[in-house]
Amino acid sequence: MADVVVLGQIGRDLVLRVGELPAAGGSVPAAERRELLGGKGVNQAVALAQLGVPVALVGVVGDDRAGGDALAQAAADGIDVSGVRTRAGATTALLLDIVEDGGRRRLVEDVPPDVLLTAGDVAASGSAIAGCRVLSLQLQQPGAAVRAALERAPRTAVVVADGAPEDGPTRDAVLARADVVRADAAEAELLVGRPLADVDDAREAAARLLAAGPRLVALAVGEPGDLVAWRSGPAPGAAAGPGEVDPAWADGELVVPRLGGAPVDPTGAGDVWVAALVAALLGRRGPEEAAWLAAAAAASTVSHAGGRPALDPEELAALIARERDRAAARLSSGRG
Amino acid sequence: MADVVVLGQIGRDLVLRVGELPAAGGSVPAAERRELLGGKGVNQAVALAQLGVPVALVGVVGDDRAGGDALAQAAADGIDVSGVRTRAGATTALLLDIVEDGGRRRLVEDVPPDVLLTAGDVAASGSAIAGCRVLSLQLQQPGAAVRAALERAPRTAVVVADGAPEDGPTRDAVLARADVVRADAAEAELLVGRPLADVDDAREAAARLLAAGPRLVALAVGEPGDLVAWRSGPAPGAAAGPGEVDPAWADGELVVPRLGGAPVDPTGAGDVWVAALVAALLGRRGPEEAAWLAAAAAASTVSHAGGRPALDPEELAALIARERDRAAARLSSGRG
Repeated sequence: MADVVVLGQIGRDLVLRVGELPAAGGSVPAAERRELLGGKGVNQAVALAQLGVPVALVGVVGDDRAGGDALAQAAADGIDVSGVRTRAGATTALLLDIVEDGGRRRLVEDVPPDVLLTAGDVAASGSAIAGCRVLSLQLQQPGAAVRAALERAPRTAVVVADGAPEDGPTRDAVLARADVVRADAAEAELLVGRPLADVDDAREAAARLLAAGPRLVALAVGEPGDLVAWRSGPAPGAAAGPGEVDPAWADGELVVPRLGGAPVDPTGAGDVWVAALVAALLGRRGPEEAAWLAAAAAASTVSHAGGRPALDPEELAALIARERDRAAARLSSGRG
Repeated sequence: MADVVVLGQIGRDLVLRVGELPAAGGSVPAAERRELLGGKGVNQAVALAQLGVPVALVGVVGDDRAGGDALAQAAADGIDVSGVRTRAGATTALLLDIVEDGGRRRLVEDVPPDVLLTAGDVAASGSAIAGCRVLSLQLQQPGAAVRAALERAPRTAVVVADGAPEDGPTRDAVLARADVVRADAAEAELLVGRPLADVDDAREAAARLLAAGPRLVALAVGEPGDLVAWRSGPAPGAAAGPGEVDPAWADGELVVPRLGGAPVDPTGAGDVWVAALVAALLGRRGPEEAAWLAAAAAASTVSHAGGRPALDPEELAALIARERDRAAARLSSGRG
């Protein structure tokens, strides 16, 4: 049985690197072309598999050749695809990722409505959700599917939500049940109802989100990095008596900076950030360790074109060791 | 045996329509996705087949699945693909066509060097060139392949060249042998060595090109349309005694305007323009009739996203009948 179930998009990634996009009417040769299994759900699941975590995917592909290819590739990546629905007559999603020199990235997303998850797809996805230790929800999927998955998650599962909920009822259901909530800058605005101007602003928003239920909140705040804040209690998912507090899980926060060099392509950074955080929490690391691993995994992924990760635990550890001291000055910890 | 041999690019076309391309860092949903057999050679060959002309293609695909798919689709389109080379280890070309509302089009072309034609590919393409009535050369292919094809063309074949030759020797060989030369605005600058400012400028350039050998020259001059100029003699490809002049082929010229409504996507316009001109010349129509059919076929092709034509001879005739009177004022004919 998979430890982690990821609910999210499955598709084809077409990555084209160009020097610079031409003006209207122009043409440009591609400097590089990559055609990969992709989609946010896949990026996260592949990262978990690369970090040694048994993972299952719940999503939808079309019954075209691209859908069959996607399932075969995901299975070859070590992902349990028994919960993936192949929709008759549907066209598998295509994510075009055009990357100019300097890491300027534009996405053109063709995600036909019939390859988004429905509540029925979640119900038909088998027993993976009911047996998982972590349920990771990508909130780009429709609210009905997200809520259906929340209803099927076992009481003991750690629920992780990434993105902005589709609507009010989904937001309420997510905040009431999720242990971990993450949002990038645009999603954070949807999640908290206003743009976040800076770290102080994100800190205040995170405090309000933590008060609504989650144990850990991560909000991207642009250049400084990600604000990660958590509240006191047992480690998420740990069997613990009432009132028991894991020492690593005393109230705290961290601004974890962007690691590595200038990004080649930011695609996949958020998906892989969440995957690495989940892997670390499953490995009983505390929130600070988990946030650093997440940042290192994201840095690895943005160092090449395309959202598909290529994670090597030893390289990530070396990157963290190198950068953690260097970034110590930017680290503010212990607010409890 | 095919009447026309087209030497040109074979590939996959991916057409994505979007409202507007996002700024760097952004994403946009696709309004439409089309995945088609494409490439300039294919666009021209498909147009010829749709106009009822037996046509063969000389080009290169990779030995990937896309290459096999391209050959199967071209054969299903009625194109003789026996002269197409499948290159071991090569990746079939991909042409990405991003179309914004208003017909603003950007191409990202991934044409790996090893799916361009070599002289050896032309030699290995069988007997199609040696037996053809028309050899249609797309000058985006390497000069060595273009020159090899010219050497194999029968003396009686009408040679049509579209584009700008790669180098001086190829330019000389093309101008010495070609009966029909066409260039879009950018190519015309390469062909004649300077940009063409207006119709008068194009007229002067066409006269110089005609003096170098060709019987008919077509130069795109932007908004006014295409300047088509021809010089006196027998119809190209007709068996005729020395000095014999077909009345339709007395010295003349025509500025044929852009027909139809505002273009959705200009991709394929030039390829289909040439195909229709060739079909008309094979059908023994004079240069004026041929130019009007070419303009109508191009108008049909730019009325949808993607370069693949969908020509209907009756619709083309109706479009010509409708627009020819209307455009009569813009028509200047008879310079002889």
